[in-house]
Amino acid sequence: MATYSERLSEFVAQLKIEQIPTTTAEHAVLHALDGLGCGIAAHAFGEAAYALSAVREYGGRGSATAIGAGDLAPADAAFVNGTLCHALDLDDTHPNSVVHVSAGVVPAAIAAARAADASGADLLAAIVAGNEVSIRIGNAASGKFHARGFHPTGVCGVFGATAAASRARGLDAVQTADALGIAGSMASGLLEFLADGSETKRLHPGWAARAGLSAAALAAHGATGPSTVFEGARGFFATYMYGEGTDLETQVAGIGNHWVTDEIAYKPYPACHYTHAPVDALAELLAQTPLRAEDVETIVGFTDETGVALVCEPAADKVHPRTPYDAKFSLPYCLATRLVTGRLDVGSFTPEAVADPEVAVLTPRIGFELRQYSPTPDAFGGGVRIETVDGRVLEHELRWQRGGAENPLSTDEVLAKFRTNAAYGLPSEHVATLERSTLALATSHDLSYLDALATATTRK
Amino acid sequence: MATYSERLSEFVAQLKIEQIPTTTAEHAVLHALDGLGCGIAAHAFGEAAYALSAVREYGGRGSATAIGAGDLAPADAAFVNGTLCHALDLDDTHPNSVVHVSAGVVPAAIAAARAADASGADLLAAIVAGNEVSIRIGNAASGKFHARGFHPTGVCGVFGATAAASRARGLDAVQTADALGIAGSMASGLLEFLADGSETKRLHPGWAARAGLSAAALAAHGATGPSTVFEGARGFFATYMYGEGTDLETQVAGIGNHWVTDEIAYKPYPACHYTHAPVDALAELLAQTPLRAEDVETIVGFTDETGVALVCEPAADKVHPRTPYDAKFSLPYCLATRLVTGRLDVGSFTPEAVADPEVAVLTPRIGFELRQYSPTPDAFGGGVRIETVDGRVLEHELRWQRGGAENPLSTDEVLAKFRTNAAYGLPSEHVATLERSTLALATSHDLSYLDALATATTRK
Repeated sequence: MATYSERLSEFVAQLKIEQIPTTTAEHAVLHALDGLGCGIAAHAFGEAAYALSAVREYGGRGSATAIGAGDLAPADAAFVNGTLCHALDLDDTHPNSVVHVSAGVVPAAIAAARAADASGADLLAAIVAGNEVSIRIGNAASGKFHARGFHPTGVCGVFGATAAASRARGLDAVQTADALGIAGSMASGLLEFLADGSETKRLHPGWAARAGLSAAALAAHGATGPSTVFEGARGFFATYMYGEGTDLETQVAGIGNHWVTDEIAYKPYPACHYTHAPVDALAELLAQTPLRAEDVETIVGFTDETGVALVCEPAADKVHPRTPYDAKFSLPYCLATRLVTGRLDVGSFTPEAVADPEVAVLTPRIGFELRQYSPTPDAFGGGVRIETVDGRVLEHELRWQRGGAENPLSTDEVLAKFRTNAAYGLPSEHVATLERSTLALATSHDLSYLDALATATTRK
Repeated sequence: MATYSERLSEFVAQLKIEQIPTTTAEHAVLHALDGLGCGIAAHAFGEAAYALSAVREYGGRGSATAIGAGDLAPADAAFVNGTLCHALDLDDTHPNSVVHVSAGVVPAAIAAARAADASGADLLAAIVAGNEVSIRIGNAASGKFHARGFHPTGVCGVFGATAAASRARGLDAVQTADALGIAGSMASGLLEFLADGSETKRLHPGWAARAGLSAAALAAHGATGPSTVFEGARGFFATYMYGEGTDLETQVAGIGNHWVTDEIAYKPYPACHYTHAPVDALAELLAQTPLRAEDVETIVGFTDETGVALVCEPAADKVHPRTPYDAKFSLPYCLATRLVTGRLDVGSFTPEAVADPEVAVLTPRIGFELRQYSPTPDAFGGGVRIETVDGRVLEHELRWQRGGAENPLSTDEVLAKFRTNAAYGLPSEHVATLERSTLALATSHDLSYLDALATATTRK
């Protein structure tokens, strides 16, 4: 009887784009574009610059492209891209598996596909294969990796990155199973950074992407890995999830029937998820009733108990965030910035933006109200009530934040997010090329358009 | 109060060779030489050739030296060397921590030292620092990693490799602690290969060496890692050793006082440990009473119950091993080969050697006897009784196999092992240079002699 790894590998090795539902392929392409945009913006704002600096030192010279560099080795390029795509915490998440999917899968798929001179169709199939594997490994122990202190983006993401790299370079099912077996000896990523705010989190998808590329290359050159890497007594779940019940059978049985790529959620704003629904509720009110800061008497943000603790209190601190990172966890700042500047994006969390006097005038007039929202882990409901100086009261709330399956972003909204992020680091013609060519990935025969990533710059 | 990582980092960053006891420094140098010899022999016999092939594909070009290559990136060289040094299962082991120490530490230290143009004294201090950290992390949960399914050579070795790379390039204590924190998110290595004999085991010290180099470089370029990486609620021991008692306090408190590098054991023969004591007992008898195969009526090997299961039964298979790997687990083959050829080394486990008719004539006359030996996990006692055709009976046994602290190899024996292994891949002048310069490491100012490793060849 085939092992889980063998069953997954059959799916991965044989996946053709004709088998992928159109909507799933569209989701995959948009998520890839979204992830790249997040990485370009991170590079532009100087986030995780040590990834590229370190690789320039301990890595070698090659012809692979990363965001901001065109002369790297393929594995180094995958590492840099994976780290950058996650560095702003603006990239996508699959809610049930809690895996930041694209940041690990897309860089591995691109590096492997380009090194193998693969077609766009192969890259797209590789990305979908990687997404499906990352998510399903995470789903098999939903929430339990986090509870145990492991970051599923690392420990599960390495299998998706390996699947993506294997499919991109055209490994057969036996080689892919070897690669997944090898990847089991490369699974890593701790959540201990939560204790002191250190910066390991963003490295996890980068390291997973590097490992995925490495595992696939080792398997291609004859290294073998255990076929029971998932279910074995010394396998991934028995070790990393010691003593914990997991259900991989359901996940493996469903692959190719139900496409979990469709469930990946976007993050519209580079701020705490608890600010999102209030900001979007405000945006909807402003779309109907345009208001300037001086029109507003008070704003009250609605959020639940966790939201109050994260983005509303202590109120004195939240009214005047001291740093860009503080500002990401300030509901008054996010609401005021959205109203004053008409947007809330990466550019809203710079030292200059945080010092904007127009925003600082408004934030003291913004309070909060405790409300109850959906208890599911991927729902962050919220809303706002505005009282205007001329006595009007406007109120709106969202039960689900935007970006997930229950309240999806439109294609135009995803593209707008990409354009904004990419424009921080690339000239408009490159942004347009990346968008147009990635959207046409399924029929593309030339992936050299991705070289535009190398020209990404850091803002002065 | 300082965390464990901070305390270890103080030791690592400030270690000078003047603080290292002379015997410890001598042990470290001999183990480094032994490890390199194992790697050269592995390369010569074509073991783990996929490591270099894969790196040539997904890695980049640089000026770092690995065994058999002189144009690699430093991290790729560390990976190739780490994999090769462990590929024959002939490299050293620290018995209590069950870490194959040198295979992870030495390649990371060499790659980092050479990239930083460090002195021999710095390389030696880096190797000792790495040894002490690898072993003490493993000692903190002695035997428990194996019981859980993790390979300590990987999951603990990554911290030693990181310490070695950090010290070799001269990171300060704060940077070293960041590097160890980052390494916590790179710890990996499963024992699941035991289920089907796949080849992931040898990759573990290679991947650890790569990770150590990477973590140190990232920290040097400003990345941070959690200072509570060991004791934190989501730290290394809480996650990898979930629910298991561990004692890191004793290990960290002892560092710099008691030198665990002195406890690392050599493996004299590239065969199952249970064959070692009988082979050495035979060698001692032959030294006193030279015998040819035709002088011998029968040989009876002594081993314990586990030894019988591993290297004596099923007797029909053991008498005629089918492959070199089979031969490593055949006591009749090992004893007969030692008697007929006068040696038992890597060259004794080739297809040609296994087909040697002189050996095949003798093996059917070799049986076994079950005896009781020391129950400690690092003791593999055993012996032999020889009956000659002219009626003499010669008998000898060893309570401890040679190579460990209780029955150490002499310096000459270690050097002889190195020379034999290195000669499989290098001309004698390079073997002599490597030996002479490594033994003088403490006073060396030029590590370019290590470039000789690049000239190592594969046997035809």
